[in-house]
Amino acid sequence: MNVLVIGAAGMIGRKFCEMLVKNPAIGGRAVRQLAMADVFEPPALAAAPFEVRTVACDLAQPDVAESLVADRPDLIYHLAAIVSGEAEADFDKGYRVNLAGTHRLFEAVRRAGYRPRIVFASSIAVFGVPFPDTIGEDYAVGPLTSYGTQKAIGELLLADFSRRGFFDGIALRLPTICVRPGKPNKAASGFFSSIIREPLKGEEAVLPVTEDIRHWFASPRSAVNFLFHAGEINTGQLGARRSLNLPGVSATVREMIASLERVAGPNCVKLIRREPDQQIQRIVEGWPQRLDTSRAQALGFQAETSFEQIIQAHIEDEGVRAEGA
Amino acid sequence: MNVLVIGAAGMIGRKFCEMLVKNPAIGGRAVRQLAMADVFEPPALAAAPFEVRTVACDLAQPDVAESLVADRPDLIYHLAAIVSGEAEADFDKGYRVNLAGTHRLFEAVRRAGYRPRIVFASSIAVFGVPFPDTIGEDYAVGPLTSYGTQKAIGELLLADFSRRGFFDGIALRLPTICVRPGKPNKAASGFFSSIIREPLKGEEAVLPVTEDIRHWFASPRSAVNFLFHAGEINTGQLGARRSLNLPGVSATVREMIASLERVAGPNCVKLIRREPDQQIQRIVEGWPQRLDTSRAQALGFQAETSFEQIIQAHIEDEGVRAEGA
Repeated sequence: MNVLVIGAAGMIGRKFCEMLVKNPAIGGRAVRQLAMADVFEPPALAAAPFEVRTVACDLAQPDVAESLVADRPDLIYHLAAIVSGEAEADFDKGYRVNLAGTHRLFEAVRRAGYRPRIVFASSIAVFGVPFPDTIGEDYAVGPLTSYGTQKAIGELLLADFSRRGFFDGIALRLPTICVRPGKPNKAASGFFSSIIREPLKGEEAVLPVTEDIRHWFASPRSAVNFLFHAGEINTGQLGARRSLNLPGVSATVREMIASLERVAGPNCVKLIRREPDQQIQRIVEGWPQRLDTSRAQALGFQAETSFEQIIQAHIEDEGVRAEGA
Repeated sequence: MNVLVIGAAGMIGRKFCEMLVKNPAIGGRAVRQLAMADVFEPPALAAAPFEVRTVACDLAQPDVAESLVADRPDLIYHLAAIVSGEAEADFDKGYRVNLAGTHRLFEAVRRAGYRPRIVFASSIAVFGVPFPDTIGEDYAVGPLTSYGTQKAIGELLLADFSRRGFFDGIALRLPTICVRPGKPNKAASGFFSSIIREPLKGEEAVLPVTEDIRHWFASPRSAVNFLFHAGEINTGQLGARRSLNLPGVSATVREMIASLERVAGPNCVKLIRREPDQQIQRIVEGWPQRLDTSRAQALGFQAETSFEQIIQAHIEDEGVRAEGA
């Protein structure tokens, strides 16, 4: 099987490709070829048991999508996106990459005249307040960011192109991925990871919101599992609704901190410094808190069931030596 | 006030412009100038008390949107669309006009750097089965046609551009408009109008579906009223949700026929010939039957409350002399 990953230099894309080296089959079909595409040349993969090609390209440019699908990949992962904060700051760039780029990819596949599976990374950012305590499977999307708007449009295009038989699409509404490895970033959601990641290293982290904030999380490990599973399942079970709310853990910041204390001890959580930021508080208050994911669960998608498991996954997968424990 | 109507040669666009001649003010502001744009040169307006300009143009072509907004219309009605059947038959044309054309218009307004109101004609075709008996205000869109997909995307763009302050948008999810004047057309929904319109003229009409089919209707007169009202209301009341389910009448075909009999007598309804068409039956079974429109009603949008009123509006507005009565 020939696999194309667009956005392969991103955190999830890279982890997915690395896991593919360890488990070089999807749905029982051996991977023979992997193309890793991103705006920046993706890092090489060590010891892959299949042919690997890396491509630096901008999906929003003419003919790029066509060249990416020229060798007819059987399975396409479209993970590339301008993230929320940047799509808000640079309106044109967000629409160019997240909307036009996605549309160009779908059109290129249609014109290539074959029918691969396309797994599209969408986001719970398609939802916006007001919503009920638990967002039901039939709840209206109502994005409050350009990023969420672009993801919601991508979902609509994917469903229509799939309905017409141009490809076999599935859109995954990913929870906020936590704990993200690496450095703190400037995303409004960044603190969710840093209040766990930094204290585990014995470093201070800033908490800009109140502890009653509740949100929806899954680990990077779960995100990679979602991608594998989405490549494997029988999409006939999806019907016309090709977007799935994915399982996760609903946790308040207070519960996150309590979990960290149970895992790494009381000194660790003392490294979390409260520094309220009204702007971040306001943004985060508009985010989903809990989703009904019964459809995805019935299809076999699984995530962590407690925030402690999310912390453990981070410790195991990143080889963290918890300093405070 | 300077008004631009895109899609002014269509049935609703034409009726709206004609009504503007009779009532040349919207929200208390006198209309000074009206630009009527469509792919075909819109017909001239008799005795308009304001300056009228007609433009034949294709919104999906480069620079057309820019030239349409060059004189900064205060109020823009975007009614132009490739209809459902054609957007299904010609995939490229539907996306070019309904998606790219709409996006180009929104972008042109943004780049013009002023903030008009844009009233966008959306449709209940953004919804698709499965849905509950009554589609709630928070129910997920799930279009089952390319047309419905393109309208749903237009709504998302309109909401995001409005949120960013580039214009003041409102999207109207129009019911199926019935009774459409004129000749029978090949739209799957065409029979809803023809089983009323043709018998009223003493002509035979074909009913391709079972009488238990239920759907959601408003008259052309109500559609025109919706457009006026959408140009007038305080959009601050909409919040982030810029799309409105509009009021209408939920009626079965059986109820429609009974209404026709009450209005025009038993001989009239004998002109309806049953000729089942499985394909049309299947399409129509996937359409909305009833919507919760409490938001639009609270904002003052009104439609007929019985199917008899819809028939009466047709008789009055089209000068029909009911033959069978």
